[in-house]
Amino acid sequence: VADAVESQQTASKSATTIGGYGELHYNNITNNKTDEKTREMDFHRFVLFFNHEFDSKTRFVSELELEHALAGEGKHGEVELEQAYVEHDFSDTVTAKAGLFLMPVGLINETHEPPTFYGVERNPVEKDILPTTWWEAGIGANFKLAPGLALDTAITSGLATPVDGSNAFKIRNGRQKVSEATANDLAYTARIRYTAIPGLELGASLVYQSDLSQGTLDDAAAATLFTAHGVYSVDQFSVRALYAQWNVDGADAAAVGRDKQTGFYIEPSYKLNDQFGVFARYSAWDNNAGDSADTEKTQTNIGINYWLHEDVVLKFDIESQGGAADADGFNLGVGYQF
Amino acid sequence: VADAVESQQTASKSATTIGGYGELHYNNITNNKTDEKTREMDFHRFVLFFNHEFDSKTRFVSELELEHALAGEGKHGEVELEQAYVEHDFSDTVTAKAGLFLMPVGLINETHEPPTFYGVERNPVEKDILPTTWWEAGIGANFKLAPGLALDTAITSGLATPVDGSNAFKIRNGRQKVSEATANDLAYTARIRYTAIPGLELGASLVYQSDLSQGTLDDAAAATLFTAHGVYSVDQFSVRALYAQWNVDGADAAAVGRDKQTGFYIEPSYKLNDQFGVFARYSAWDNNAGDSADTEKTQTNIGINYWLHEDVVLKFDIESQGGAADADGFNLGVGYQF
Amino acid sequence: VADAVESQQTASKSATTIGGYGELHYNNITNNKTDEKTREMDFHRFVLFFNHEFDSKTRFVSELELEHALAGEGKHGEVELEQAYVEHDFSDTVTAKAGLFLMPVGLINETHEPPTFYGVERNPVEKDILPTTWWEAGIGANFKLAPGLALDTAITSGLATPVDGSNAFKIRNGRQKVSEATANDLAYTARIRYTAIPGLELGASLVYQSDLSQGTLDDAAAATLFTAHGVYSVDQFSVRALYAQWNVDGADAAAVGRDKQTGFYIEPSYKLNDQFGVFARYSAWDNNAGDSADTEKTQTNIGINYWLHEDVVLKFDIESQGGAADADGFNLGVGYQF
Repeated sequence: VADAVESQQTASKSATTIGGYGELHYNNITNNKTDEKTREMDFHRFVLFFNHEFDSKTRFVSELELEHALAGEGKHGEVELEQAYVEHDFSDTVTAKAGLFLMPVGLINETHEPPTFYGVERNPVEKDILPTTWWEAGIGANFKLAPGLALDTAITSGLATPVDGSNAFKIRNGRQKVSEATANDLAYTARIRYTAIPGLELGASLVYQSDLSQGTLDDAAAATLFTAHGVYSVDQFSVRALYAQWNVDGADAAAVGRDKQTGFYIEPSYKLNDQFGVFARYSAWDNNAGDSADTEKTQTNIGINYWLHEDVVLKFDIESQGGAADADGFNLGVGYQF
Repeated sequence: VADAVESQQTASKSATTIGGYGELHYNNITNNKTDEKTREMDFHRFVLFFNHEFDSKTRFVSELELEHALAGEGKHGEVELEQAYVEHDFSDTVTAKAGLFLMPVGLINETHEPPTFYGVERNPVEKDILPTTWWEAGIGANFKLAPGLALDTAITSGLATPVDGSNAFKIRNGRQKVSEATANDLAYTARIRYTAIPGLELGASLVYQSDLSQGTLDDAAAATLFTAHGVYSVDQFSVRALYAQWNVDGADAAAVGRDKQTGFYIEPSYKLNDQFGVFARYSAWDNNAGDSADTEKTQTNIGINYWLHEDVVLKFDIESQGGAADADGFNLGVGYQF
Repeated sequence: VADAVESQQTASKSATTIGGYGELHYNNITNNKTDEKTREMDFHRFVLFFNHEFDSKTRFVSELELEHALAGEGKHGEVELEQAYVEHDFSDTVTAKAGLFLMPVGLINETHEPPTFYGVERNPVEKDILPTTWWEAGIGANFKLAPGLALDTAITSGLATPVDGSNAFKIRNGRQKVSEATANDLAYTARIRYTAIPGLELGASLVYQSDLSQGTLDDAAAATLFTAHGVYSVDQFSVRALYAQWNVDGADAAAVGRDKQTGFYIEPSYKLNDQFGVFARYSAWDNNAGDSADTEKTQTNIGINYWLHEDVVLKFDIESQGGAADADGFNLGVGYQF
């Protein structure tokens, strides 16, 4: 009888699974220069995962997101496909994928479920420099070089930044989101990640694209991103740090000081118990690091996470923007994953 | 063996569930003033529920909707997040929630699956006065005061009505849908609901917001909604009735007659058997009840519901608009829930 | 014990199922007239199915699609409801449905999961003439006349083509997608399908609509689509062919040569083994077949499908456009279904 039960169980098990995450934000920030007060309630991200296991070596992963709770003509939000790829294990150490996937860069870009990080809003360095959430389409491969040492490589569609106006060569504005994306110039990515020592994670990525303008400029804006990060945890204490730098060739980016765009942050945190954790984060970044003006912005956040359940988190943090920015306030958040 | 089977069953049971509802409408209405004929086929609402049980006391509820079958640049419809909250039972009598949820007002706002109500289209009173479907984000709590007596309270984001133009202070146009919603003025809500006598439900809600204009006017448009409803069922006969009234302070709303906006409807119905039910509904409402002009509109619907299955309904009703409106016609609908 | 197990299994079985399909495309096409090169990466279609079985005779079928990976204000893509209907078996030979469904025309319109067809992009004949993907809302019925012989009929909403400009009377531009669709003129459809001989499928459809302009023209543009297709497979060899023709009445369509719009394609293919298949396809179509100018376009595709798994396909084809068009290039694709 036991055998019969088991085989029935297997037969009835679905190979398709769903999950999701989401985060509601309340921001209360005052710009000290203009005295403009922003008090905003926003269901920033509502995300669903639809995954399927074709066989033990072949699987499908997808992530569908509604941003800002509302998408349509004249609405603030949008519906985005952030992941949709087929992955196949060619051996115990080589896994390849084809489709639309998250770029293997930084800390938050691939793992951004709210219960997994501190702070209501994601850090501004990964947002404005990397630019998180960053996804492209193409092919990728993961090589397990040794226990705790892995190499990720990818050839994908790339960025298409504006070439004039106030957002010229701004990395974040170059995201095409694989929506009829111009693919004259592809992106080539490699990441190495080291996790062999318990409590420690080190990673570094390199992305190269032969022209950020996708061929629209006479003088190609060849661009390279270098980013490195580390996470170190001992007992209840943890610290995360990340550095990122874009170098953009060509006269056009240099003319607007966007030939260099850099940033870093460091985030120590302490988990009081399973439910409470406190953190501080200092971020500094500059999308115009190539010019001589003092355009660097800084941001300090100090706050607390309260996990009602390991997959449900309430967040609070105080925010102070400095450098080229000058603003103060606080943020409240509710997040979940399943 | 039986024990083993049960434990395996439990292990394989997913805590994530999906459901949905939808409604296709055909409207055939003639405006008797302009002789304009509207004949329209519209998949008005396609809705999916994604729910998850974190543990026996903590759960996630969400509702994602595609309106008018099509959302994008230049399209009629939109994608909306109508519910997304985490709920936690603090005791047998106290349940609290945080996130984006439906406001506890009226009859249709929280329960609007097509097989649960009569008429192809939802009643105009709850639509234009309450304004159904009305959702906000914040925190809420449900207190079971006694068997059959419950109190709901909530502090949430609020409305932001236009302050000029033809829709100035019109309640329905103030819905921000938690999409980067201005939150200078929050909404405070309380509802009491009495269901102790079988076949009878009585409910009343009060919503207060200190300024419908979210601080954009010199003279704050403080606003209060009062709404009460009753449902009484005996054998196959049932009657539903609702009254709603907004009072809006300040000179600006009064100047356009929107300082008072009221409405009511009454809907007797008779269920012939499990499959057929007939109803009549008289609605009267006025978004300009504060002016001296005769701006009240009325609408009478008489029709039939045919339940092919308890969760699948075909609907037909005849519609006659009167008062400040003058139109006649009929509606056909198909609805389902699962 | 065995009985107990079975009843528990039944109880725990969900009547709601989900599935999906998707396709990522890379197009590299050069227009030989203008020398314009299109190199584009696009997650063309991301589709989810949500189905529910109410009882053994009554079920719900739905298909939700995100086109071009991104939908919102100013974005390329859109969210579409392509199927959402309730179907009921009235007898072993009669099944009826009500809701929004795919029109029973051609080969690709109802069955378009990427692993089921050859070629990265769908064929241009069904796209521009039929116009695939074509869905409407209303009621339909399937009659099994004899083993291998079935009749489908439907009364639905119809097309509303533009009546002036460069797209006047162009069939594809008439799709209203059941989004607040004008329904002055409905569409009447019948299809006969013959599958009694193994390896052979023959089908023919007729669609009639009394006015493509939905009553906006003085001279009604009554329109009839006739389409027929055949599929014949013997061993590893298979051939598919389709012919389609629209006849549009009225002086307005004739004035712009759109009173006749026709097309056909033929596609032989050979499956080398379970994983590899090669094909060639010749398509010719003309949306201005009613004028005297030589406006017919042709397209030849030759390529290969590689099935990594029966539900996962990688595609490559070479494309050559001729006739009124002149372009060359190739396409790459990744597709899946579950």
